[in-house]
Amino acid sequence: MIPEPPLLLVLDLLGTFVFAVNGALTAVRATRLDIVGIVTLGMITGLGGGVIRDILLGALPPATFIDGRFLLTAAAGGLLAFALSGRLERLGRLDQPIVVLDAVGLSVFAVLAAAKGVALDFGWSQAIIVGVITACGGGTIRDLLILRIPTVLRSELYAIPAMVGAAITVAILRGGVYSVGTALGAAAVCFAIRMIGVHYDLNAPEPPGAHRRD
Amino acid sequence: MIPEPPLLLVLDLLGTFVFAVNGALTAVRATRLDIVGIVTLGMITGLGGGVIRDILLGALPPATFIDGRFLLTAAAGGLLAFALSGRLERLGRLDQPIVVLDAVGLSVFAVLAAAKGVALDFGWSQAIIVGVITACGGGTIRDLLILRIPTVLRSELYAIPAMVGAAITVAILRGGVYSVGTALGAAAVCFAIRMIGVHYDLNAPEPPGAHRRD
Amino acid sequence: MIPEPPLLLVLDLLGTFVFAVNGALTAVRATRLDIVGIVTLGMITGLGGGVIRDILLGALPPATFIDGRFLLTAAAGGLLAFALSGRLERLGRLDQPIVVLDAVGLSVFAVLAAAKGVALDFGWSQAIIVGVITACGGGTIRDLLILRIPTVLRSELYAIPAMVGAAITVAILRGGVYSVGTALGAAAVCFAIRMIGVHYDLNAPEPPGAHRRD
Repeated sequence: MIPEPPLLLVLDLLGTFVFAVNGALTAVRATRLDIVGIVTLGMITGLGGGVIRDILLGALPPATFIDGRFLLTAAAGGLLAFALSGRLERLGRLDQPIVVLDAVGLSVFAVLAAAKGVALDFGWSQAIIVGVITACGGGTIRDLLILRIPTVLRSELYAIPAMVGAAITVAILRGGVYSVGTALGAAAVCFAIRMIGVHYDLNAPEPPGAHRRD
Repeated sequence: MIPEPPLLLVLDLLGTFVFAVNGALTAVRATRLDIVGIVTLGMITGLGGGVIRDILLGALPPATFIDGRFLLTAAAGGLLAFALSGRLERLGRLDQPIVVLDAVGLSVFAVLAAAKGVALDFGWSQAIIVGVITACGGGTIRDLLILRIPTVLRSELYAIPAMVGAAITVAILRGGVYSVGTALGAAAVCFAIRMIGVHYDLNAPEPPGAHRRD
Repeated sequence: MIPEPPLLLVLDLLGTFVFAVNGALTAVRATRLDIVGIVTLGMITGLGGGVIRDILLGALPPATFIDGRFLLTAAAGGLLAFALSGRLERLGRLDQPIVVLDAVGLSVFAVLAAAKGVALDFGWSQAIIVGVITACGGGTIRDLLILRIPTVLRSELYAIPAMVGAAITVAILRGGVYSVGTALGAAAVCFAIRMIGVHYDLNAPEPPGAHRRD
């Protein structure tokens, strides 16, 4: 019933990497920071969700600080994004990878954190909420650091696919059918719902000047 | 001398509920998010203070994740606020409940967290500061997520009533006269000071465009 | 090899103090908050880095709450800054102390947190990253609370001097030559690099209106 460690680790590194690339590309897109700012935002985005998860689970110091592979993975993602960003920007193609990578990271972290919650004997709703917070956490920190209302508040289908993915994960763990295949299936459902939302533009509109009001 | 658990739990759920309603109404008022964003901001506001408190006290995982009633209470508060918000907005009556609920949550969490600090053998100033941080924490996260300078910085009488409420709580605990009545009394003093500040408009003015300066 | 406690404590209090003065002066400069807001931002800036460090290291409750001297030091720094701010502002001399104090706090916290990481048997890269996060943490919280893109993202030479200072610290600890003198030397290198960046205006330009884009 306990998720096998290698899958956990690979998923965790994958989520870290895609969020790091996403965060760095977002930095290019949104604020044109220089290389240090871009890689920093990438690393914070990549590592943020896992750090929040480990703080909430009381698993301190966070895995990031025990296992240097996370730092290296996040740094590599940030640097790769910086290297590619010039070309992507000239092609006018920054937006799509940003959205897709964010959805991949969302899905992976939702499944992974929910599984960690179950492994720690959390109840259903607790494991699901830990999954949602972890999945949405990295992107929320990213948005706050560049002074943007977080996607989790602006988009109808962001917290909800994470919740669905986390709930399926808890169900397959409780049902004793957790495996690489079913975990990836849960992540795929989350990813599909998120991308449907993006494709049909189900983002809630942000009224002009709204966040300047008091 | 240790605060009795039932009072702690009821106060904690009450604070969670009123902050959740407040956060959701604030979302309606300030940014017109859709239902998911509104309920999400409500839940974050309701749960944020307690999560910060439990992180600072090293009581991990936070009570929220151990005891599902907090999640349910926060979700109920957010949904109730969403259901009522249309009617309140048409009546032009969103502002007053936002301010009053925020003051109730501030008072309850200041007393509760200071009592938790004393129960953990913290000194006077430590218990008081934990009370203040917890009381101001949920609202501060709420304001940051919608890109608003937090009330705790903008308003003269926000941190101070929380400090007074927390200090009275520590005093009645040390004096051995802690009870439901005296705890509610401490909260009432905090609430009264906060509402006096609101009524006489003792909010510090925010100079125009100030937070765009570097 | 373990850093001697008195040096740790003095450095920690020094970093807390200079960041508190810096945060309070920044509040005056950036948003003209009133006294409560100014002292609050000062205290949050002074205590923020150390609290983040202790959360990440799992050293909870944070030193701040165990040892009241940190609270007093931060409050004293905030009040001193408030008292001096009017005179400094009239002289048009707010900017320089803000920048210098921030650089001192950055240097002190980078060295101190890296040393704490080594004392807890962290690896090289982990100790360095804890140093960087702690050093940049207080200022990042300060900037977010007044809705400013954090210096760590905007400035080329902010995370990097912290990284250099933390790396030197790890090296001198591993090399067995850690002492008051070498620790201050590591901090001085960090400080010098940061001030060179400021002097030659190596801050990355923030494109106009960039952080309003989605």
